[in-house]
Amino acid sequence: MLSIDINCDMGESTHLWPYHIEKDRMLLSYVSSINLACGYHAGDAHTMHELVAAAITADVAVGAHPGFADRDNFGRTNMQLPPGAIYDLVVYQVGALDAFLKVMGARLHHVKPHGALYNMAAKDEVMADAICKAIYDYDSQLLLYGLSGSKLIEAAKATGLTTCSEVFADRTYQDDGHLTPRTHPQALLGSTQQSIQQVLQMVRQRTATSVNGKEVPLVADTVCVHSDGEYAVEYARSIKEALVSEGILVGNEK
Amino acid sequence: MLSIDINCDMGESTHLWPYHIEKDRMLLSYVSSINLACGYHAGDAHTMHELVAAAITADVAVGAHPGFADRDNFGRTNMQLPPGAIYDLVVYQVGALDAFLKVMGARLHHVKPHGALYNMAAKDEVMADAICKAIYDYDSQLLLYGLSGSKLIEAAKATGLTTCSEVFADRTYQDDGHLTPRTHPQALLGSTQQSIQQVLQMVRQRTATSVNGKEVPLVADTVCVHSDGEYAVEYARSIKEALVSEGILVGNEK
Amino acid sequence: MLSIDINCDMGESTHLWPYHIEKDRMLLSYVSSINLACGYHAGDAHTMHELVAAAITADVAVGAHPGFADRDNFGRTNMQLPPGAIYDLVVYQVGALDAFLKVMGARLHHVKPHGALYNMAAKDEVMADAICKAIYDYDSQLLLYGLSGSKLIEAAKATGLTTCSEVFADRTYQDDGHLTPRTHPQALLGSTQQSIQQVLQMVRQRTATSVNGKEVPLVADTVCVHSDGEYAVEYARSIKEALVSEGILVGNEK
Amino acid sequence: MLSIDINCDMGESTHLWPYHIEKDRMLLSYVSSINLACGYHAGDAHTMHELVAAAITADVAVGAHPGFADRDNFGRTNMQLPPGAIYDLVVYQVGALDAFLKVMGARLHHVKPHGALYNMAAKDEVMADAICKAIYDYDSQLLLYGLSGSKLIEAAKATGLTTCSEVFADRTYQDDGHLTPRTHPQALLGSTQQSIQQVLQMVRQRTATSVNGKEVPLVADTVCVHSDGEYAVEYARSIKEALVSEGILVGNEK
Repeated sequence: MLSIDINCDMGESTHLWPYHIEKDRMLLSYVSSINLACGYHAGDAHTMHELVAAAITADVAVGAHPGFADRDNFGRTNMQLPPGAIYDLVVYQVGALDAFLKVMGARLHHVKPHGALYNMAAKDEVMADAICKAIYDYDSQLLLYGLSGSKLIEAAKATGLTTCSEVFADRTYQDDGHLTPRTHPQALLGSTQQSIQQVLQMVRQRTATSVNGKEVPLVADTVCVHSDGEYAVEYARSIKEALVSEGILVGNEK
Repeated sequence: MLSIDINCDMGESTHLWPYHIEKDRMLLSYVSSINLACGYHAGDAHTMHELVAAAITADVAVGAHPGFADRDNFGRTNMQLPPGAIYDLVVYQVGALDAFLKVMGARLHHVKPHGALYNMAAKDEVMADAICKAIYDYDSQLLLYGLSGSKLIEAAKATGLTTCSEVFADRTYQDDGHLTPRTHPQALLGSTQQSIQQVLQMVRQRTATSVNGKEVPLVADTVCVHSDGEYAVEYARSIKEALVSEGILVGNEK
Repeated sequence: MLSIDINCDMGESTHLWPYHIEKDRMLLSYVSSINLACGYHAGDAHTMHELVAAAITADVAVGAHPGFADRDNFGRTNMQLPPGAIYDLVVYQVGALDAFLKVMGARLHHVKPHGALYNMAAKDEVMADAICKAIYDYDSQLLLYGLSGSKLIEAAKATGLTTCSEVFADRTYQDDGHLTPRTHPQALLGSTQQSIQQVLQMVRQRTATSVNGKEVPLVADTVCVHSDGEYAVEYARSIKEALVSEGILVGNEK
Repeated sequence: MLSIDINCDMGESTHLWPYHIEKDRMLLSYVSSINLACGYHAGDAHTMHELVAAAITADVAVGAHPGFADRDNFGRTNMQLPPGAIYDLVVYQVGALDAFLKVMGARLHHVKPHGALYNMAAKDEVMADAICKAIYDYDSQLLLYGLSGSKLIEAAKATGLTTCSEVFADRTYQDDGHLTPRTHPQALLGSTQQSIQQVLQMVRQRTATSVNGKEVPLVADTVCVHSDGEYAVEYARSIKEALVSEGILVGNEK
């Protein structure tokens, strides 16, 4: 049976904006895994606790979502750090989140780097190695979620981690399989329907159709939906319902 | 054989002030356990990593030293937080530090709250319970270091944690066994020799002589030495050497 | 002509959640003054810049909204700080915000403490004095916004600051003129219509009707509306439109 | 009469490490200007207040020392931020520090960017322009301290700011007038005597002798001495005394 995981970044607001957590809670019905901010680029201990508890109840897999300590810019700023510093910031954040699973008798499922850490590690082998080594040393059974086709996925395999290649439902792809940069006018698909078609093609044919109309091969183990935006819940529901109605299993078993 | 643990708070500067870490490293020869700042009131991932590694090499037990997120005041400000928030900040910080032990194949030994968290929990049962529950839920084998005779020690025992009652070598005690407040002119003992005499009395007679000359009973499982101050290393060495030369075992086995 | 200021706390999210700033922008049409978070309990330099610019364009007065450095709890935690530390945190935050007015050739209008700082200073003379002295030393022309009838208003007058007594449209009052605690079932008025009636009574009769039906005297120079909540914009608009249609001037001239 | 300013970065520890502030206080006797950390990469409101007061008493000019919000790495990490974000972080930090001068009736003297912000702006025109525009918009009379011969000095002149070209007493220079990178074995001069000779040559001949023995022209308006290191005070005193005994005025008048 064909299957794909649906993941979502969560816990990126604070527990003082309660309707954000409410949106996160609602989204738990339409995803199979979540990536929780760990207090560096966003998030706080209270929010982590609440969303770990909610995810366990909803039977959704929980991953750590470590980022740069750059709260003012939401972890989106490229920071040139030596590999030792990258290793340390991953260990710290993964341990902090894992603690909330541990007090509930649950297990951490995966790690997905956030923002600039994710994007830099997609291209930078040294940074990718540091991230993967930190995860492996912490718990070699953890899955690594990274951009499909990236250096991060390569590094994870070389390190001995099981990988989960991430694709995006609402982003377009180029002839070489890379994402179209956000600055490009065609970076985003125009409709939920197009997103659904793209995900179905990714799962069934293991390809995407590039902005130039070329079929490019693509590994799609997990598809990312976003928790921000006014229609985030409706969008996630549409994606999940389309997959299920087409007989595709939504889940995170590897 | 009589024994006592010598503990020291460490990792409270940043790795940018290298001579602080150097002092911390030197102190490892004269203590049997350390309490590492976890990034809330002080500390950072890099310093945590370095000092965990150094402590393992030196065969010194490592504990977490969680505090309030109040870096500007070094965690010394009383913060009125609900028990759920106390529970969460302990879980977060303990997990973050434990991660650095885990990647090195070592085990966390204990938890000692810092500053205002330590002092408030010494008197406040609700806060003490929240701290102890967080530690127990995380790992019921962890020791709790707390002020000798405090509510925190009581709460730990009630929760099922093994406790380690802390005394201070350089502070004086009152007739009721409480520490003389720092604002009091006689709060501190005047010389290293007096500190040594007090520690020896605590270990041998399980008493301290109060500022009024009264013998008061006292449980002394661990004695705290400080890492700041110009003569911190010399002071710690004097305490340890005096204990050893008097045939008292310095160690952290319970 | 009767008049009242309508103020709103803003800039308390980050610039990464753009729809928050959008709500803040929309609210500028219905308020005459705003209080901007200064980076301690919430806020960041970029958000401060954007909202200062928007407020100047909208001809809305800008005040600083300093709070405790307690981002995890949104500045709502009571922190026991000495008066010198209170003085310093007010100076720092007021200066940081004022800088954004200065680069635009505009002037800071007032200071309104946030959260626990506001509430503690309403009752604690020492803290109230420290806040008012900081503001006066920085710029003696700044207005102090504080809870109507509080120690903070008294301290400001004693210091030589012009005051602006704040009331709440949606909160109920007790026989002694104090706000009904939020934990009380009758703490909030049930409808926008009741809020409007209360504000009109405050402006016209300079009284409020307590939960027990007693008329209590009350100074109402400014009324606070909130920027969070799903219907914040509609609520603010209703309050302003009701005041205007009743011939009351909405503005911040003292 | 020949003259040069001696500047020193200060306030980069916290007020919890009192002997750091003590070292800063001692250094005030041997410098003519200081650059105070503003709370992003280091520093806090209390330390800022204390050192501003001490500098005014010592008749030492006070400048702001803004850096990246990267406390874990002391502002030494390159961060790729858009010019608007650079502008905002400078405005915020300069305003926050200036506030402590304002409450004491004193005036801010200059701005010297810190760490990675200083180094990136030395080479990056866009960043340099953003920094200088922020300073100019805030107060066009402020001096800009920047690396001698850098893009930052060029940008400041183009913006209309008065500049102060900074040289280093203990660093060596290359044939093109650039500093020898710290990774190079000859990056540092070996003795205080060599430092003194280099500074005297810079002031008198307006040149430095490169590591290859070549005389390179150099503008030296201010020389930086460091506040960290075990012999920081002795070093600064030696530099100042040598300059004074050679008839060179140590001061910050432009």
